[in-house]
Amino acid sequence: MVKFIHTADWHIGRKLQGKDLLEDQQVVLENLITEMKKINPDFLIIAGDLYDRSVPSKEATTLLQELLVKINIECNIPIFAISGNHDSRERLAIGEAWFSKHKFYLHTRLEQAFDKLSYEDADIYLLPYFEPFEVREHFEDATLTTHNTATKRVIDEIYKNLDTNKTNILVAHTFVSGGLETDSEREISVGTVENVAVGVFDRFDYVALGHLHNPNAIKEERLKYSGSPMAYSFSEASQTKGMRLIEVTKESYSEEFIQLKQKRKLHNISGSYEEVLTKEFQLNYDCKNDYFSMELSDLEGITDPLPRIKEYYPNTLILKQKRNTGIDNEVKLDREMLTKSPLQLIEGFYNEQTGSELTDGQKKILVNIIDKVNQDETN
Amino acid sequence: MVKFIHTADWHIGRKLQGKDLLEDQQVVLENLITEMKKINPDFLIIAGDLYDRSVPSKEATTLLQELLVKINIECNIPIFAISGNHDSRERLAIGEAWFSKHKFYLHTRLEQAFDKLSYEDADIYLLPYFEPFEVREHFEDATLTTHNTATKRVIDEIYKNLDTNKTNILVAHTFVSGGLETDSEREISVGTVENVAVGVFDRFDYVALGHLHNPNAIKEERLKYSGSPMAYSFSEASQTKGMRLIEVTKESYSEEFIQLKQKRKLHNISGSYEEVLTKEFQLNYDCKNDYFSMELSDLEGITDPLPRIKEYYPNTLILKQKRNTGIDNEVKLDREMLTKSPLQLIEGFYNEQTGSELTDGQKKILVNIIDKVNQDETN
Repeated sequence: MVKFIHTADWHIGRKLQGKDLLEDQQVVLENLITEMKKINPDFLIIAGDLYDRSVPSKEATTLLQELLVKINIECNIPIFAISGNHDSRERLAIGEAWFSKHKFYLHTRLEQAFDKLSYEDADIYLLPYFEPFEVREHFEDATLTTHNTATKRVIDEIYKNLDTNKTNILVAHTFVSGGLETDSEREISVGTVENVAVGVFDRFDYVALGHLHNPNAIKEERLKYSGSPMAYSFSEASQTKGMRLIEVTKESYSEEFIQLKQKRKLHNISGSYEEVLTKEFQLNYDCKNDYFSMELSDLEGITDPLPRIKEYYPNTLILKQKRNTGIDNEVKLDREMLTKSPLQLIEGFYNEQTGSELTDGQKKILVNIIDKVNQDETN
Repeated sequence: MVKFIHTADWHIGRKLQGKDLLEDQQVVLENLITEMKKINPDFLIIAGDLYDRSVPSKEATTLLQELLVKINIECNIPIFAISGNHDSRERLAIGEAWFSKHKFYLHTRLEQAFDKLSYEDADIYLLPYFEPFEVREHFEDATLTTHNTATKRVIDEIYKNLDTNKTNILVAHTFVSGGLETDSEREISVGTVENVAVGVFDRFDYVALGHLHNPNAIKEERLKYSGSPMAYSFSEASQTKGMRLIEVTKESYSEEFIQLKQKRKLHNISGSYEEVLTKEFQLNYDCKNDYFSMELSDLEGITDPLPRIKEYYPNTLILKQKRNTGIDNEVKLDREMLTKSPLQLIEGFYNEQTGSELTDGQKKILVNIIDKVNQDETN
């Protein structure tokens, strides 16, 4: 039996509507360590997206180091981790050769997925985030064009050496179908077919996933997203955030979701301007501390409402006029977007931001860039 | 007795006149490893500036990792290293906590200089590059305004715990007076008084310095620059490049400078256009491979001479018209520059580059920035 913690999508260095979340992340992840120490697990799994950006800031770098030192060196807890689509594999891999000597295993390259790692009666496979073209190159098979076929090919390769007497655990950073997307992941997948069928993974005893921030994005036994330890967009405001405690053998399986105490909560407020300024309304929230996205009616005629709102809710990050059309414009927009070409999307965005149209010269440059991106993807 | 290799100023990711030197660096540093393996030293010292930039490229990051893995993990050679002024201490420090468990000691913060490290009968102190304001803060002493007084204060603190029965080695990245500067380091020190008197270090049995790229920048026994492993500007073209082999006890000292085979040499050519195109002249050089800086007479009337020169010397990185004034304009300029204020320097540079003068508004902004920089320096 192995007992471990499954977490993912730390996104250290993330900003929320321009607001730096480093302080929030430090508190939440220190809480994760505190909770983990009480449990004393065999090991910790981090299923990708440790950083939010390929070139993280100095401060983000320092925070991640401090957390990993606490877990792996001070608490002596082994770590099994992979790079996600937000990480730069080269930058994340710095120190890897030394980490593994202290039972901190970090895989960032596709071919490392085939290295079997062991902990007592468990075999652990660490599959970092990859693009289908890497699998095409690795197996010299041009037919592997989607995330589903590419992932299936990789997993089939792992299956060749699978020891079925062991408890087999896979760690992956991918979009398994059935998963529900939120705003913070959407940017990755617009316009691509990147979901992987759940059946691909059926020979593993547990699949620890990262990528989707909702811990309930998929409802399968023994195949779970941990979700992110905190909300990274207002569409995640209502999600429970935490980490998973898993105990698994070939025969038995138990799981527990452990909520993590947050420094600040996120709230989507929909109401009238007058209403949110009342004392009764404010009693429901930690007004001075939490993050707010406000969609308010009755803003007409009020000059510069934001400063007044911020007097009561200083961390108001979004303030929108509430429309009374009855149609949810944003949902409509998203559906429309999926039918458009990259050039049309950029044209629309440019027009929306500047009020003018792209010139023919500008379009020509864009077409060249888009072609180049498509070629790089196919090569 | 300890026997070790002293190197410094790798500057991985450096460019020479825009030309990426990564390939050259890989060859030279692989040669360093090959030579070192023959010697089988007790350890390797790297005295700062491992990277050339605070945010190195992915490729630079990967190369440095590969080299350090070979030395420390594959060859099992301990490493004692510090950050230099070109390194980002936070980024370089990634993995440090794991490195030190495998005898790879990397100090990046001032206070780490006071941690005594030991190897057999030697005590080793690793003093990373620092700015005087850090020492002022650390010791709460506002009088420590220069590199000399600040360094003296740090070294005096180390002396308090010095075990005089041990062979005491200091690793530092600083400009010890008597040192000769070249173009690649000059940018750091223009307008500041940053040199440290050699006497400050007199109680150490060996001082392994980095910062100046000329291995002969200072002529002291037991206090040496290793110099950079390769030339990083044309002013370094005539310098011997390599690493030092040191064997030292309290009583005995021996040194050997080991030249490192370069992938390409640098040449400063001064001659006439016709002359450099002759076969006889070309016999002196590896024309197709080496890097050239050409200062040629008789270019008048030749349209676009560079392509023609590059037919014979493809790695011509500088081509200048040779003036027959008899005065060395560049040397004159450098002397003049030292007499100017920062604002005057920027005004002159702006005028030289654009042909126009700074407006009063621009000057005002610059004065504010310069004031702020000076304040930060003093605070």
